[in-house]
Amino acid sequence: MKLWGGRFRRGPTDKFVSFESSLSFDFRLAPFDIAVNRAWAKMLAKIEIISDSELKKILAGLDDVENDFEKGRIGRDDKFEDIHTLIEDRLFTYAGVAARKLPAGRSRNELISTDVRLYLRDRIDYIIGQIRGFQRRLVARATENSKVVFPAFTHLQPAVPVTLGHFILNYFWKFERDKRFLKFAKDEVNVMPLGAGAAGGTTLPIDREFLMRELLFSKVFENSVDATSSRDFILVFLEACVNMGIHLSGICEDVVIFSTPHFGYIRIPDEYSTGSSLMPQKKNPDFFELVRGKTGKIMGNLIALMAALKGLPSGYNRDLQEDKVSLFDAIDEITEILEIFPSVFSSLEFDEARISKSIEDGTICAQAVAEYLVQKGVPFREAHGIVGRIIADCEAAGTKLRDLKIDALKMYSNRFAADVFPLLDPAGVIKQLAVSGSPAPLRFEQQLRMAYEQSEG
Amino acid sequence: MKLWGGRFRRGPTDKFVSFESSLSFDFRLAPFDIAVNRAWAKMLAKIEIISDSELKKILAGLDDVENDFEKGRIGRDDKFEDIHTLIEDRLFTYAGVAARKLPAGRSRNELISTDVRLYLRDRIDYIIGQIRGFQRRLVARATENSKVVFPAFTHLQPAVPVTLGHFILNYFWKFERDKRFLKFAKDEVNVMPLGAGAAGGTTLPIDREFLMRELLFSKVFENSVDATSSRDFILVFLEACVNMGIHLSGICEDVVIFSTPHFGYIRIPDEYSTGSSLMPQKKNPDFFELVRGKTGKIMGNLIALMAALKGLPSGYNRDLQEDKVSLFDAIDEITEILEIFPSVFSSLEFDEARISKSIEDGTICAQAVAEYLVQKGVPFREAHGIVGRIIADCEAAGTKLRDLKIDALKMYSNRFAADVFPLLDPAGVIKQLAVSGSPAPLRFEQQLRMAYEQSEG
Amino acid sequence: MKLWGGRFRRGPTDKFVSFESSLSFDFRLAPFDIAVNRAWAKMLAKIEIISDSELKKILAGLDDVENDFEKGRIGRDDKFEDIHTLIEDRLFTYAGVAARKLPAGRSRNELISTDVRLYLRDRIDYIIGQIRGFQRRLVARATENSKVVFPAFTHLQPAVPVTLGHFILNYFWKFERDKRFLKFAKDEVNVMPLGAGAAGGTTLPIDREFLMRELLFSKVFENSVDATSSRDFILVFLEACVNMGIHLSGICEDVVIFSTPHFGYIRIPDEYSTGSSLMPQKKNPDFFELVRGKTGKIMGNLIALMAALKGLPSGYNRDLQEDKVSLFDAIDEITEILEIFPSVFSSLEFDEARISKSIEDGTICAQAVAEYLVQKGVPFREAHGIVGRIIADCEAAGTKLRDLKIDALKMYSNRFAADVFPLLDPAGVIKQLAVSGSPAPLRFEQQLRMAYEQSEG
Amino acid sequence: MKLWGGRFRRGPTDKFVSFESSLSFDFRLAPFDIAVNRAWAKMLAKIEIISDSELKKILAGLDDVENDFEKGRIGRDDKFEDIHTLIEDRLFTYAGVAARKLPAGRSRNELISTDVRLYLRDRIDYIIGQIRGFQRRLVARATENSKVVFPAFTHLQPAVPVTLGHFILNYFWKFERDKRFLKFAKDEVNVMPLGAGAAGGTTLPIDREFLMRELLFSKVFENSVDATSSRDFILVFLEACVNMGIHLSGICEDVVIFSTPHFGYIRIPDEYSTGSSLMPQKKNPDFFELVRGKTGKIMGNLIALMAALKGLPSGYNRDLQEDKVSLFDAIDEITEILEIFPSVFSSLEFDEARISKSIEDGTICAQAVAEYLVQKGVPFREAHGIVGRIIADCEAAGTKLRDLKIDALKMYSNRFAADVFPLLDPAGVIKQLAVSGSPAPLRFEQQLRMAYEQSEG
Repeated sequence: MKLWGGRFRRGPTDKFVSFESSLSFDFRLAPFDIAVNRAWAKMLAKIEIISDSELKKILAGLDDVENDFEKGRIGRDDKFEDIHTLIEDRLFTYAGVAARKLPAGRSRNELISTDVRLYLRDRIDYIIGQIRGFQRRLVARATENSKVVFPAFTHLQPAVPVTLGHFILNYFWKFERDKRFLKFAKDEVNVMPLGAGAAGGTTLPIDREFLMRELLFSKVFENSVDATSSRDFILVFLEACVNMGIHLSGICEDVVIFSTPHFGYIRIPDEYSTGSSLMPQKKNPDFFELVRGKTGKIMGNLIALMAALKGLPSGYNRDLQEDKVSLFDAIDEITEILEIFPSVFSSLEFDEARISKSIEDGTICAQAVAEYLVQKGVPFREAHGIVGRIIADCEAAGTKLRDLKIDALKMYSNRFAADVFPLLDPAGVIKQLAVSGSPAPLRFEQQLRMAYEQSEG
Repeated sequence: MKLWGGRFRRGPTDKFVSFESSLSFDFRLAPFDIAVNRAWAKMLAKIEIISDSELKKILAGLDDVENDFEKGRIGRDDKFEDIHTLIEDRLFTYAGVAARKLPAGRSRNELISTDVRLYLRDRIDYIIGQIRGFQRRLVARATENSKVVFPAFTHLQPAVPVTLGHFILNYFWKFERDKRFLKFAKDEVNVMPLGAGAAGGTTLPIDREFLMRELLFSKVFENSVDATSSRDFILVFLEACVNMGIHLSGICEDVVIFSTPHFGYIRIPDEYSTGSSLMPQKKNPDFFELVRGKTGKIMGNLIALMAALKGLPSGYNRDLQEDKVSLFDAIDEITEILEIFPSVFSSLEFDEARISKSIEDGTICAQAVAEYLVQKGVPFREAHGIVGRIIADCEAAGTKLRDLKIDALKMYSNRFAADVFPLLDPAGVIKQLAVSGSPAPLRFEQQLRMAYEQSEG
Repeated sequence: MKLWGGRFRRGPTDKFVSFESSLSFDFRLAPFDIAVNRAWAKMLAKIEIISDSELKKILAGLDDVENDFEKGRIGRDDKFEDIHTLIEDRLFTYAGVAARKLPAGRSRNELISTDVRLYLRDRIDYIIGQIRGFQRRLVARATENSKVVFPAFTHLQPAVPVTLGHFILNYFWKFERDKRFLKFAKDEVNVMPLGAGAAGGTTLPIDREFLMRELLFSKVFENSVDATSSRDFILVFLEACVNMGIHLSGICEDVVIFSTPHFGYIRIPDEYSTGSSLMPQKKNPDFFELVRGKTGKIMGNLIALMAALKGLPSGYNRDLQEDKVSLFDAIDEITEILEIFPSVFSSLEFDEARISKSIEDGTICAQAVAEYLVQKGVPFREAHGIVGRIIADCEAAGTKLRDLKIDALKMYSNRFAADVFPLLDPAGVIKQLAVSGSPAPLRFEQQLRMAYEQSEG
Repeated sequence: MKLWGGRFRRGPTDKFVSFESSLSFDFRLAPFDIAVNRAWAKMLAKIEIISDSELKKILAGLDDVENDFEKGRIGRDDKFEDIHTLIEDRLFTYAGVAARKLPAGRSRNELISTDVRLYLRDRIDYIIGQIRGFQRRLVARATENSKVVFPAFTHLQPAVPVTLGHFILNYFWKFERDKRFLKFAKDEVNVMPLGAGAAGGTTLPIDREFLMRELLFSKVFENSVDATSSRDFILVFLEACVNMGIHLSGICEDVVIFSTPHFGYIRIPDEYSTGSSLMPQKKNPDFFELVRGKTGKIMGNLIALMAALKGLPSGYNRDLQEDKVSLFDAIDEITEILEIFPSVFSSLEFDEARISKSIEDGTICAQAVAEYLVQKGVPFREAHGIVGRIIADCEAAGTKLRDLKIDALKMYSNRFAADVFPLLDPAGVIKQLAVSGSPAPLRFEQQLRMAYEQSEG
């Protein structure tokens, strides 16, 4: 069955129909297509294009069709061009000729856009919920580890002491931005194209406000040509996914590196590790590598759409059918990842002894020591040079910054006094931090509170 | 001059310094770096790390440095690693040892992020202003052409009649979305990293609220590790640019096609056309092709950053230096395009006679004719089939839909009556349109008013 | 079943196994995995790691497993990590403990790379065959249309006269380059990793030459670390696909534009056109739009892999599992397109009358007229200016270049004589062309002959 | 000055000229444009379009122009559309009216393609030379380190013992593939478009064979439409660059990780390290991070071109102008990196003590121990399980595999005997390796010899 053909002398070849069909991937839109059909039918009755009895037949028929989908009685059958055709055909078997009246004033261009918007609106809510769940886990793990001293790295070299809790919250805020981006995307999604016809509206007195309220859209499209062909709402969503993918990939990189025996900061428990079929000793962080790899795929989905959209003329073009393949794949990847990532992350075991040992020589305190001199009146650049020389000499002599005595320090600057010693200890440095956003204990409490509140928002 | 080295036995090779230097491209950040230095100096004085007289010297010195830049006395000299080093060095020549105190408690990681944020905030405002200017031109051209009947295309085939004004406003709303996206991006940009130190804050009692107010940021970063390394604010901006690029490329595609002699809808005036060095007759739409080509470059900039960010571990990594190359290039492309695009677009001449002639046979009215039958009680699918057959028969017979007589029409359906004739004329169809978002005269007035108001927003 | 676990205290969770499993997409590798297993078993017998009777059991068992696959008795069951595990497990049911000996000295890292190489080698041959088929169609259509005068466009503006046959062969050579690229890719694919172990070979005396010959590889990998982790062979193939996609997208763009009613050069027959569910008159070039859209997806596949590979450390990383998703998708897209594209292209009907009418005014002959003056001794730049002025005056006066009389021409240059008139006719210009690679009749014959020969190569 | 305009009533605006001009970036093509002009002039004389005395004037004039460029007397002045226009204009000042005859029968479309091909051919040779230089360094460093035992990693976990020399040669072969790809790209570059005119050749009797020989092209283009518009030769080159970038990024990732204090495998000498302006202790691997970041940019260049080319109609379109921006940037990045990378890589110091210590417990020998059991008749899967349990028990007990006594081993399998002990030592495992491509001493010698020979090829 196809929804056109009056002007055609010959029908399409089977191979062509099969090549063109989007049914295999737009099957998931069925509930949304049915919802749009319900709203449309009610509206047609309201403007008296169909009668009340026809409306009843259509609504009952749509219930039957919905039931068929839920019961698995409908297959992804290539004979239909798309989900709309399939549903219209099936509705005809239940509602008879009334079904033939339903598509009045409506194009598939606007219908597919409406279906995808409803579906994506639903998925964004779901993904935001998943992110919130992950954020709660991050807050919990950060709380547990609020006292564990941990090196912050820059250039993958130990930089300054923070706490493990603070380090974990570093991830939290990335996902907070992702939530904001997704909410922005949702606003762009939640605009109704119905009423736009193929590109120039319809001569039937369609009631758009009624449809908008029925389908819970927050506004209607302003221009019919734009309405049916814009895919900005998908682009924006995919862009949010790419950013989230980058955030996930960063956590993965951290975990992969921190779980090498050389670091030994993290142990991945057996139930989330993978072995080797050849090397009996291996316990590999496959999960995190796989997620990292998958974020490349999400990027690929965005590029596929960007490239498809570039240079298209105004109005709907069939190139746009491909948007759904990229969109659905990205949604599936992201939701599949987010369904398991929080559990795996929560299961990670941090080896406090290894962490602590890796920074025990106090080198990581160099900035604090330089700042100590600043507070004693030494210009910062000079203080930086002094501490740099101390470190270089320690390295050459094989001694540790932390073990230096006051006399040794005084050889570099007579401003050094006994009150410098707490600053040679990473934990001591953290106590002396003051600014908001730092791992200073009180500041961290504030951050944790903010994080807790925002994870609920 | 470099800002480190105490712990190094040997300095870097020249070739290495030159390879690493970002000065050639971050030169444009100078005014923003100076602004941050001013705010930082005031704050250091407030928390008594520097004295009032040192503050005076620094502020006066920064004025001198700024003056040097404005007078072109400073070159893009490779001897400096970056703009911060250059400015610190130059400040030293004016302010002496006080300059050595200025960088206390502050890393280049947070400084570069702050500089870029200030610069980008400024550029977003500028670009939004450019878009508004273009939107005003679109509104003006749409107003002028509010009565010209024009074919809306789908699949690049004539679909339904709209007005040229309505068609032009189709572009307007794309840029309205771009403005929204850029405003969202600006909110993400307008967050202050200062106080984050290299990754873990500082032991000096930095006053972040003071800095935030001085630099007009709307909020401060919540986590120091995240603050110095996040490049989400650039990603989001580049994503907005990519979407805008796609919109521009679509206009270009329309113009290139509409200005072929076969369409003849658009004449590009001589001053914005290009000839051929070989073929004397050529007048080419080079401008629009070039803009279309440049949107590929903007995509390339986004991918460059995405690929650079994927899989980086937490904390600043030097890979991030490359973000600026992509960012600055995208800004330059977009602003360069937007500086000339509105003028060129406004100069386009629409050939109403060619437009009108291309749709005179009335085929484009087929939807309206089918809807006519619907209003006479024919189910839509049946009506669609009837009109399809009429068109096919016209085509075979070499006649035009518009020229059919009532008797001929009645052979297809006895519901046809004389009141169908206005609908065989594209202008007649437009008069019968009713829904919002369509080119119906009153609806178009509403759209135009909304567009006018939003172009100011 | 999994192929490791001795050192694990707890097994993986079901959700984790399901997340990690590649079985759903690497199912198609089964015949190649079986082929590798056969070769490996023979080799193990040759070096006496297994006995002849064990070899027999294994080979018989592999036949049974192959039969199971062919009969559809094996499902894409998530319980297995991958196709290798499934096959090893199934083999055990047929061959018993001998199956447990088979994987000696071999890692899944090298196995998957070998399987994919064998599969891809096969697919490249298939795709090259598809291209040849398409090329033959292009040669046939070019031959049919060797005399039809056709405008070559630059900037989508009519530029110079060629023949339609020549224009069609323009496509031919793009695919000739694709074939060369695919052959280069095949050489990169056809290198055997077996013997590399996980990354450092094996202490068992594996016979790589034997394996290479059995599996028809053309050489063996030089370095075990590189062998198991390199995905260059997939990158190169995807790059060839992207280039081919660009070529296909260009044909599609041509057809979409040439089949607008404004051009009217091409009619797409009913069996490869699509209608509209709303607008009864529509006959849309959906096929070509869809192919154009799909080429974006192929680009997305390349980017997904590029992004996944960037910045990976040496040796196999699990990120690489994702390579197959992108590879298989690209192969499916390309082969699906190439299966139908030649037929659809061959079905296109060129409207010679419309083509001819669009260039009848002779403007397209301007270059030839300028060259006429050159041959009469006028410097080219001057000749160009003269002809440019003639065209401008024709345009202003509403006359055609072709209709100008000799007196009118002489007013621009006294070098014009009666022998210029053949050059005011597009067909006349073509007759005067001389250089190879042009549509000059004899040159075109040469080109056609070369094309015919190369399509067989 | 511009090369067209006869048919234009008004000239282009300044802003438009500036927007369109490619001069700023195609300046580097000057020597190649001059070379093409020389060949073209000789050919025109040969076919008697210009006289011998005109030829002399032109050749002398071109020498003068070349001299002007070399002396820096010509600036990147926006008044010219492109490098061809500039050179033609300048030639006119030296050669007078003869210069106006030179462009006969030639379009800028073919000229720019020819210039870029000559330039790129030159650059490919240069880059291949750079790669050879790097390969020689790799061979030298591999030779020095042929005996140092080193862990090969999979999943960034220690996998099996190899030698550092073998590990370094792992990089060698990646660049060998890059050389092959570049040579393939060069073949695609080395095809001459001249003679194609704008798209359909020329009526002048151009001698393409003569031009081909003069400019040392290896063949001529087969079809004039394709010749002027194809950018496949740039795509293929950029694809080779992307692959090379991925290889470079992998080395960088290795070095960044191996130079953390936790690994301590690599020390980057002071002259190639960077400090921190805030943290006095820092010595960062900035160089490797920066190169890793730059590979993202190279990917961006490819995507920019891919996106620009997709969906362009046949024949030259101005979008193609942008190809050079991406191409030149990629060339600059790659050559800049390759100019310094080999020196930096050669300067890396490997800490043999740290490397050795990290694998001293023998866990990395697990595969070899399992294979030992295989050679004693244990099926591999069983052997794998046995060794897995040994490792798990060692881990639980805090003992090392290497320290186990024969009695302990026999508790897991009675096949263990004293001859297993050499295999508990990584160096012992390497001695027992046999297969080609492995780090077995003799095999490594072979590999080194092959590498040496191929680096010269």
